[in-house]
Order: sequence, then C-alpha cells, then structure tokens
Amino acid sequence: MSSSYGKNIRITLFGQSHGPAIGVVIEGLPPGFAVDMPALQRFMARRAPGGALATARKEPDEPEFVSGLYQGKTCGAPLVALIRNQDARSADYEDFKNTPRPGHADFTAGVKYNNFSDFRGGGHFSGRLTAPLCLAGAFCLQLLEKEGIAIGSHIASIGQVPDAPFDAVNVNKNNFTAIENAQFPVNDEQQGLKMRALIEQARSCGNSVGGVIECAAVGLPAGLGDPMTCGMENRIAAIVFSIPGIKGIEFGSGFAGCALWGSQNNDAFCFQDGAVRTRSNHHGGILGGITSGMPLVFRVAVKPTPSIACPQDSVDLKTGQPVQLSVGGRHDPCIVPRALPCVEAAAAIAVYDALLEQKKYSE
Amino acid sequence: MSSSYGKNIRITLFGQSHGPAIGVVIEGLPPGFAVDMPALQRFMARRAPGGALATARKEPDEPEFVSGLYQGKTCGAPLVALIRNQDARSADYEDFKNTPRPGHADFTAGVKYNNFSDFRGGGHFSGRLTAPLCLAGAFCLQLLEKEGIAIGSHIASIGQVPDAPFDAVNVNKNNFTAIENAQFPVNDEQQGLKMRALIEQARSCGNSVGGVIECAAVGLPAGLGDPMTCGMENRIAAIVFSIPGIKGIEFGSGFAGCALWGSQNNDAFCFQDGAVRTRSNHHGGILGGITSGMPLVFRVAVKPTPSIACPQDSVDLKTGQPVQLSVGGRHDPCIVPRALPCVEAAAAIAVYDALLEQKKYSE
Amino acid sequence: MSSSYGKNIRITLFGQSHGPAIGVVIEGLPPGFAVDMPALQRFMARRAPGGALATARKEPDEPEFVSGLYQGKTCGAPLVALIRNQDARSADYEDFKNTPRPGHADFTAGVKYNNFSDFRGGGHFSGRLTAPLCLAGAFCLQLLEKEGIAIGSHIASIGQVPDAPFDAVNVNKNNFTAIENAQFPVNDEQQGLKMRALIEQARSCGNSVGGVIECAAVGLPAGLGDPMTCGMENRIAAIVFSIPGIKGIEFGSGFAGCALWGSQNNDAFCFQDGAVRTRSNHHGGILGGITSGMPLVFRVAVKPTPSIACPQDSVDLKTGQPVQLSVGGRHDPCIVPRALPCVEAAAAIAVYDALLEQKKYSE
Amino acid sequence: MSSSYGKNIRITLFGQSHGPAIGVVIEGLPPGFAVDMPALQRFMARRAPGGALATARKEPDEPEFVSGLYQGKTCGAPLVALIRNQDARSADYEDFKNTPRPGHADFTAGVKYNNFSDFRGGGHFSGRLTAPLCLAGAFCLQLLEKEGIAIGSHIASIGQVPDAPFDAVNVNKNNFTAIENAQFPVNDEQQGLKMRALIEQARSCGNSVGGVIECAAVGLPAGLGDPMTCGMENRIAAIVFSIPGIKGIEFGSGFAGCALWGSQNNDAFCFQDGAVRTRSNHHGGILGGITSGMPLVFRVAVKPTPSIACPQDSVDLKTGQPVQLSVGGRHDPCIVPRALPCVEAAAAIAVYDALLEQKKYSE
Repeated sequence: MSSSYGKNIRITLFGQSHGPAIGVVIEGLPPGFAVDMPALQRFMARRAPGGALATARKEPDEPEFVSGLYQGKTCGAPLVALIRNQDARSADYEDFKNTPRPGHADFTAGVKYNNFSDFRGGGHFSGRLTAPLCLAGAFCLQLLEKEGIAIGSHIASIGQVPDAPFDAVNVNKNNFTAIENAQFPVNDEQQGLKMRALIEQARSCGNSVGGVIECAAVGLPAGLGDPMTCGMENRIAAIVFSIPGIKGIEFGSGFAGCALWGSQNNDAFCFQDGAVRTRSNHHGGILGGITSGMPLVFRVAVKPTPSIACPQDSVDLKTGQPVQLSVGGRHDPCIVPRALPCVEAAAAIAVYDALLEQKKYSE
Repeated sequence: MSSSYGKNIRITLFGQSHGPAIGVVIEGLPPGFAVDMPALQRFMARRAPGGALATARKEPDEPEFVSGLYQGKTCGAPLVALIRNQDARSADYEDFKNTPRPGHADFTAGVKYNNFSDFRGGGHFSGRLTAPLCLAGAFCLQLLEKEGIAIGSHIASIGQVPDAPFDAVNVNKNNFTAIENAQFPVNDEQQGLKMRALIEQARSCGNSVGGVIECAAVGLPAGLGDPMTCGMENRIAAIVFSIPGIKGIEFGSGFAGCALWGSQNNDAFCFQDGAVRTRSNHHGGILGGITSGMPLVFRVAVKPTPSIACPQDSVDLKTGQPVQLSVGGRHDPCIVPRALPCVEAAAAIAVYDALLEQKKYSE
Repeated sequence: MSSSYGKNIRITLFGQSHGPAIGVVIEGLPPGFAVDMPALQRFMARRAPGGALATARKEPDEPEFVSGLYQGKTCGAPLVALIRNQDARSADYEDFKNTPRPGHADFTAGVKYNNFSDFRGGGHFSGRLTAPLCLAGAFCLQLLEKEGIAIGSHIASIGQVPDAPFDAVNVNKNNFTAIENAQFPVNDEQQGLKMRALIEQARSCGNSVGGVIECAAVGLPAGLGDPMTCGMENRIAAIVFSIPGIKGIEFGSGFAGCALWGSQNNDAFCFQDGAVRTRSNHHGGILGGITSGMPLVFRVAVKPTPSIACPQDSVDLKTGQPVQLSVGGRHDPCIVPRALPCVEAAAAIAVYDALLEQKKYSE
Repeated sequence: MSSSYGKNIRITLFGQSHGPAIGVVIEGLPPGFAVDMPALQRFMARRAPGGALATARKEPDEPEFVSGLYQGKTCGAPLVALIRNQDARSADYEDFKNTPRPGHADFTAGVKYNNFSDFRGGGHFSGRLTAPLCLAGAFCLQLLEKEGIAIGSHIASIGQVPDAPFDAVNVNKNNFTAIENAQFPVNDEQQGLKMRALIEQARSCGNSVGGVIECAAVGLPAGLGDPMTCGMENRIAAIVFSIPGIKGIEFGSGFAGCALWGSQNNDAFCFQDGAVRTRSNHHGGILGGITSGMPLVFRVAVKPTPSIACPQDSVDLKTGQPVQLSVGGRHDPCIVPRALPCVEAAAAIAVYDALLEQKKYSE
C-alpha cells in the first residue's frame, strides 16, 4: 500500500502531478541538522525541467517546510516538505482517461484503483514525484558528506552511444565535481555531443530515447548492509526502482560479469596504505550484501520516455474499439539527464539508512 | 539487521552453513492450507546439490516442521521449518579465517561483525541458505497455483552461450513444464549441450563460469503492486538479491530497451478475447510498478562462483602479508542451474505478498 | 524514530504546535472512498478547543487535503491533510526553554534532541497533534460504519466523580448517539453536573483535574486481531498511548478483574439468535488477543493537565538553580472531554487496521 | 499476521503448546555477545512450572540454539532457540475442540483460523509461549546490565491482598535482588503469606485468582523513546499485552493519578548530585513518551487463570446446545508469580529496542 522506504530513516512520498502539492515526509533525521539550502536547491535544479533538452514545463519547485524544522534546524519531529503544483495543464491529459497511453501507468493504475486513480499527468505515478525524492536525497547526501561519503553519477549511454565508464577502483569525488560542472553530465565530452545530437533527433521526430546511468558512492566504510534480504544490492534496488522508467539495475561487473570466468571476475585482495582493498572492482564494492570499502558502483537502465508524439495504437476502454493516439503536451525526449540526481538521491537514502543501522552497534 | 522480507507474508531466513541447522519462519500463511509435500520436495530437489554438474556435497535437506502445522495443515501459528546441517567439513574452511577468499563475504562479514562472524562455509552468507528460501517459495508457488498463477525459468545464458528467450507475449505454463522435464533447463536443447560443455571446461580447469536466468510469472491479474517504492520491480528486486551471487536484474526489455526509440519500446494496447493486452511485451508485464496482466518477465545476472581451485591473491589479515590461496572443498563450477528454483521462489514470495496486499481491497 | 502507526493502514502524524502546520499522512485507504466531510468536521469539533470548559485558544482546524483525493474521492495516493497553525502565542512559552514545566515533555524532549527540540507550545509533543489523529480516525470511523461497526465513549470519571458505566454486554450505537447529543458526554446527567462543577473548581484555583474515559466498539465480527504481539489489546494500547496525558489502559474487567475468582471473571458462552455470545463481558470482547464478537470495551486513564497556574518547583537548566514557575497561557483545567474523540479515533484506526488484515484471508 | 515485535531488535515467537517445539527468533543482537547461560537459565526457571504453587507439568525448557551462535557468541545471523515440547497430554484437551473454554482463546482462534487452529493446550495462544519470550528477554536483560540498567518486579497484589509498593523515586537494583532471593516475590513478607494462603484457597476450590504485578526499570538514561506513537508507554504496552492473561497496564500514578489535582500529580524538578531529577515520580519515569531518567514504573493486571475445575457453562459448537464443562489437566490456580519474569522480559525487550534506536544518533 505504501509509498515509503527505509527502516532507520524513513521517507514517504506523496502527491499527484496535478493535485495541490507533492511532497515528502522524512522520519529519523538526526536533531540539530541545518541543511545547506542553496546546495539543496542546486541539487534539485539538476532534476528540474527547463533545460535546453528538457520539457518546457516550468516549475519553481520551491519546497515549503511545514514540519520538522525549528530555527532552521531539524528538531526531532518528522520533516515534511511540500512542493506546490503550478503550471499544470490538465486538459492535455483529458483524452487518456479511457485510452491508456502505451508505456504509461494509466491502464494499470486504473485497474488497481477501480478507475478512481488520478490520471491527470500520471497522478501519483508521475515523474514529478522524483522532486520530493531528490529533496529527501539532498538531506541524506549532506549528512553523508559529513561522514566523508560522496555520491555521483554520469550518463553511461544514450541509445547506443556510450560514455567512458568510471574507473571502478579509483573513482572519487573529483570525478563527480567535474561531471556536475560539465555542460553535459558525461566523462567524455565528445561522446556527450553525440548523445545530445541523438536526443535532438528524437525530439525532432516526436520520438524519445533511453539510456543507462552509472552511479558511484565513494568513501563508504566496509561493513554496511546486511546479509540475505537486507544486502546493499537489495536496499538500493528497492528504492531505485521507485524512479519511473527504471527497468534494470546491475552492480559491479553485473550482466557482463556473467560471461567471465570466475578467475577473471574475482577481485584479488591486497593491502594499500594499511587498508584492505581489491585490485579490481568487479564486485562493485559489495560482497555478501555488505560494503567492502571499495567504491560502490551500479548502473541503471532508463527506458525511452513513453510520452511521444508519434501515433500509437491503444484501445478505448469504454467502447472496446482500437484507437490511435498521439501524446501531446510538453515531454522530454529523453529523461536520462534529469534522472541522474534521482538515482543519486535514491542511493544516498539507501546508504544513509544502512549507515544509521550500523551506528547502533558501534561502540 | 534483518534477514526478513515481506509485509503480508513475512519470511525470515536463519542459520549458518555449518551450524546446527538452517531454516525459515513464514508468517501470514492462510490457515487450513495443506502443502503438497512431494511437490515441495521435487521443487527443492532442483536446487539440491548432487547433480552431475554440481557439487558432490550430499544433503537430504529434509525439512522438519516445528511450528505452524496441525494435522498437516497450516494452523495460524508462524510456520517454522528446520533443515539440519549434515556432511559439513568445516576443516575445509579453516584457512579462510584470516585469508579472505576473493569474491566471498569472508572479509566484509568479518568487518561487519567485528570478527565474530561464523566464517565456516560462508556461515549465514552461504548459498546453502537458499534451501529455506526455496522452501518458503514452494509454499507460495502452491498458493499461487490455486489462483491460476505459475512461475518458471530457464537458463538464458552460460558464459557467452545464449538460450532462446521466452516468447514474452505468449509464454505459459506448458513452457515451464517442458523445461522442468528437460535434461537441462533450457528452451533450446542444442544450446544446452554447449552450455554443459562450457561448465565441464570450467570444472576441468578448477575455474567457474556465470550466466543469466530468465524468469516469467504468468496468469497474474492486472493491478498487483504499488506505485513508487512498492512497485513489483522494487518488490522482486528486494528479494532476488538475497540469492548469493546475483549482481543484476532487468525487467522486460531492460538494458537492451534503453537503446530503442520510444516508439519501438512502447507496447501497443489491444483487445484480445475481451481483455486488454499488449501486442509486444517490452514492459515485462509491469507498468508504473503495477502488473498489466501480461507475463511478468525478468532476467538476473549470476556471477561466476567465486570458489575456484585456481590460485588467487589475497592477504593475511593478521600479518598484513600478501598470500596466495586456492579454494579446495567441493564447489560448483556453475551455480546457475541450481539457482533457477531460487529465483522462482523469490519471485513467488514477492508475487504472493503483493496478491495478499491486493485482497485487502477486493470486495 | 517514528510517529507512525499501522501495518495495513498507516498513519504518520507530523507538525509542531507553533510551526507552520500540523497534519497526517494516511496510506492504505481503499480507493473511491468519499469521506463525509460534514461528519468529519462534526467529529473534529468535539476535540476542538473553545467549549465553555475548555481553553480559549481558537483554531478553525480546517484541513487542507494536498494529496490522495481526486474529485473528492480517495485515489490510491497517500492521503495528506494539513491543518495550519494560527492564533499561536509563542511568547507564552518563552520562559520554559530553560525551566522545564513539571509533567510536560520540555525536559525529556530537550535531552532527547540535544536541545534542538521545538519547545514552543510543546512542539511535536503538543496535545494539538491529536487534531490530525482525529482526522485520521474520522476516515476510519466512516469506513468502519460501512461494515456495521460503531465506536463511542463517555467520561467514566472526573477526579473521584464516576459516571454509570456502559452495559458491557448490551452497549450499542444508540448509547453513543445519546452521549454525543448530551450537554456533557456522560451516561448519567446528574453525575455530569458534579463533574462540571469539579472542573470549574479546578479552573478557579488555577489547578487541573484528570479522569477516566470508557470506550466501546460494537458490531465487530469475531476473529479480528492476532495472537501474541499483535493482539487487539497490543494494537489498541500501542496507539492510544500516543494521546498526550494517557497513563493507563485496561480491557474488560481490567484491574478490578484481578480481585475476582476465575469462576467470577470467566464469561460463560451461550447461543443467542444463532450466534455464540457470552453472558457477561469481563473479557472486554477480546480473548487471546482476538475479538469475540462481544462489545470491545476498554478504559483509559487521563492524567490531570500538567499546565497549571499554581506555582510549581522546577530548575533552571542553565544556572542549576531551583526556580518557581506558573504556567500562564490558555489551558484546559481538564482535557478529558476533549480527549473522548481522540480515544475513539485511536480505537478506530487500530480496529480498521485489524479489519484490513483479516480481509486478506477472507474468501 | 505477525507474532513479531521490535524495530531495532526484532523477536518472533513461534510454536504451539503441544506441537514439536516452541521458540524464538531474535534479529539485531550485537555481534560477539556471550550470553551468561546459567543466569539465563535461572531467569527462565522463575517462569517454569513446578513450584509448590504452580502446575505439576514438568518441562526442562532447555533451549537448543540452532542459529546465531558461533563458539558461544552471537555471530550476526538471527539467533534461533528451540524449546522442545515434552510431557504434553493432548488427550486432556480433546473435549474443548467443540466446547470452548470460557476465558480462553479456543473460540476466537477457531473463528479466526476457520477451525484449523491447533486447540491442543491453547496452541500458539498458550502461556507456554512465554518461555521463549523470557529467553529473548534474558538476552536483553544481560545486554542492558552492561549499560547499567536493571529491571525487576514484585507481586503488587493477589486478589485483594496488596504488597507494599516500590518506592518510585528510590527503587534500585538491591530491591530486585532482595525480591529474587525471597521465598515469595514480594516486598512485604507478611503480605506474601496472605497471598499464598489465598492461592491455596483457590486451588482447593478448583478455582483461580488474579493479581497485579509492579515492574520497574532503573538506571535508564533520560531521552529514550519517541513522541506520539513510539513513546515508551506505547512500546512497553505493545509487548506486555503479548503475555496471555494481561488485561491492563498503567504507568506511574496511572488510574489513581486521575483522581488527583494537577498540582498533586505533577512532579517537581530538582537538581540532585548534578543531575535533573523529580522529587516525586507520578510520571513513572516517562514524560511525553520519553524517559526522564527517573525509575520507569508500571503495573499490569493479570486476570485469574481461566482454566478452573469448577463447572462452567459453554456451548457445543456442533450441536448448538448448551453444555457444562470442567477444565481438568494441570493448571495453576494463579499465574501471577510465574508471570513476573515474563513482564520483566517484555520490558527489557522494549527498553533495549529503544536504547538501540537512540544509539543511532549518539556521537
């Protein structure tokens, strides 16, 4: 039933795309924490619509904090932030009530909620709900930063155009800063230009394109996460799939690692500067569900935006007749660039939750 | 902290590979259910060691039910099943206490638990813990069968040798039966022979090889799962990663779908026999986290078994010196065939949990 | 960490008494439910300040629904209601920052949250948080009403003045209606007059007085609740103690029953109109944690309001010196009358949660 | 559905009175903890049947640890302890299948589980399930002892015979030791003799008698517990009601405090030895759900054992006819003495869970 996540820190996402507001409840924040608001807003701006390659819908996404702060600091009460919905054109969606858009949740939400779901703009299923996810993630990222942990990501591919991957052994905070400061969030600027051309091509055709995001968390101590059902892979996957359009996740060498011999995929242990490390990092920083102290690296698959202007086949749920539809409105031809901070936010929440868990047992 | 999963049905896995017993607690089973014990044992036998291609370790894996049954039927109390550990040769592992095996949880568990972890045979991190997972899965599979839902899987690839994939639109229970009755669990027998040759090659070299498993659930009603953090992808991923060695999961067109145009990846809706269906199934039966009524299809990446006889580099945690080690004992050169029922079990638990959730709101 | 309750329906209370807003998130409401808003407001009005015997603080307590409704009906998204704080005079509380009020959470919250807690008006610990509790309860009460279940309460005592108790065997909805329509919520009007006189006496002395509330739920099917840790007593107690000032709860014959012989306290079974019932109801409608179908009856102890004008001894946390303080502001000399709907709301949430649980297993 | 409790430490009770075994799973124990087994057994012996005043059923209650220990210390895996059932005479219960015993869960469990419940000896509802509760409590008590926290209890009354209460301000570990070493667990030996006479009287009549238990936890730091739904009262009540026969709980001055003026019930703050304390302790060590550092004191109501030899009225569920029954077998005329360690165990689990919660936020 729930749009909640976490055991030690708990986030609950709420709101519908064209309802009065969207927002998030965060329970379990440490008291006395003063979030760096400009940094929070910079982080959320990376997700916001309005970039050259993104949808034209404009939303200031200015959060209002109605609970949990006192004199600018967390005070123990659940933190609740609202983001009011503005500039919503519900009329754009009037047609989809009975003619579900392919690739969207219109049909499945209608079945689940006996046709009482708010279909306007995707309702509670909208990508817009990632704004409060990012807000919660920004809190966690700043709390992690105080522990020396940083999380960053880049576009690993758009369509079939790949970027250079992170160096899984040596990736560090400088890499993340470089990507954030880049025109386009990639390691290899030349590949970035090709990606942008591909996105433009999709837009000009009324089509869309997907991609892959690679995310890394560095500075993690060894020992976070739990065996079996609460491993770091379980925890991260359980929240990353909250981001609409994510259809796959792999850690370390992932699917490609399946084609290797064990002798190739195993990472030899070594000592380095007095610490146990591994020479390669096919395990993606996680062994047995628990962090090894090496960079935690994973990739997620982002499907092509389902909202496209090209004509598509659907059905009229009332008449039982086939229909053709074309999704108008203002849509991104590629949501991958805007999804980067969402993936980082999801990872930050999962990691911070595991970190709090571990603190219970530290002396 | 927890080795538990589920909100409506809840499983808790316990035990260490070389401790007195492993087992599972299942809370939330409906009362009056008489499990088909021979079917349960056939299911667990698919996971059991001892096949021609598998480890030589022999375990009857006969469960003892100490709670939850009365006159052979579930009675409302938590169901608890024990599987006693036998034929364990802890001496095989004596060396790894201070020299962690590459690719294993020896090191991370040691750090997490301040060196108090039971390292023998991997302890609580052992693949042996998938026996009680399968046991819990067998209960859910039988309960799902009563609702017309079936779950099956095949080896999608070993190393670089692929099998023919499921037909994502038309896959059905007959496909599953055929695979279960086959000599080797694949759709294409010829490819199966190549896979077996590859596994034999790995064994003869003291090496190992990984692979990919494709799993499908059919007969699902539309409307299962929840938005955001409790979508079917989240739920399935959150338990599938409990299986040791799984490093990736993708639903529907997954990572390959990222390279398609939106117009290619979207699945057109149509009516068929009075029901809404999709012509293709790139969405893998899940839209917005909720089942569409089409087959739910996902693939998981299984890494090459880390236990290999080839010499590997590690470190001596006591002396700080580099060491070489070779993992003796009896190990599978490829755990993919034995992982099939584990993946089906994980999927069954996730699906049954979602099904119970939905029943709360049915009239 | 959490201000949340429930497994099938989940409520999360947020806000601080003098912050921007208080409110509640309700997850798990069935879709398509149109709350009767006037009935909801009548229910909340019973809790609202402003009665002749209550505090002079005026708050319209008009909820704003920012999530979860579409065209006036629940739509599957979490329901979020805000109640803006108005008419708050924080200056009234300025003194208590370093001189904790006896009987209040000023001191304990300060310790817990390292002095970052919002002490104004009790912050998140304020009785004002019972407004969103009542709001959530109103939803559950209306949902229960559709199942033939009603919940009501009366003042069982103020100070040492008792009311006539409910007839635990025959109490029904008509009793509840009579109490709601009465000038003062008691069964025996004459006793009510004495109670009011006692409250007036407390007010005139700058003092306060406590009391006991008796609550009953009728129309419950047998079979709700679970053994051991999830019995109806556990579930109800776990939420009733959320109401500030509640210091005790007893079910059925409760503490008085301890002085009876088993032969007196046991309730004989009988058949009545084809149903199994009990002749007496010392068990308060719960046996083994599970409802018996008899009225569920419990009583809660409400301590005297700690905010009193009489001078009291406290300490100055900064100087370490003893101080005397007198709590000014506008406070109820007795919160018992306003606590009635809070107790009903808590019971309704617990019962509705148990009812949803049971629906999972109904055919 | 669940027989589980706790968020940071999690216990799950399982088993049926006359099934193969009862037991408990404990998740979240710190690694490396070596339980003092003789102390654990002494604690459990206080609950065990066989005392002069107790049932004649003999059970060694020797726990078998099948998971969670390695070389005698906790190793990170869930701890699982089994207690085999022996000396069970199921035939004693054959009659109650269709003629539910008054005051027992026979009827409600039958309804809940569609008559598939294990009615033998109360099944999962049996008081016998408090043996694994005590086992879990013993672990928590020993862990709390390392933090300077002690928990003890005495019989506050049997029938109408009261004991001298704890001094709520000064109660300490020495009081607990004295009670444990006493012939009968009371503060006032003379009152204890009267209680024993009353119990003997009940036995000789084939009847039973109830009582009240007072429990205190001392050495607690201020700041444990959470506001609203997770206060210490909520947490303790939520597990204490798991003990069969408990029908009420009150903290501090509880129900009696309702008859006091606010000026009497409020506890003045003072400094003592540099620490903030209160001169009286009507608040029972909890303000706003959070510990104040004063002794945490509560009382629970234990109903008279429902199993009595006196003839009682019931119904034949098959024929619909009234019947008379007399509960044979071996039953305690008063379970209060044996319930003391159960209440301490429940309190210990709740307090330890809150303590772990707080550790997440300590620097």
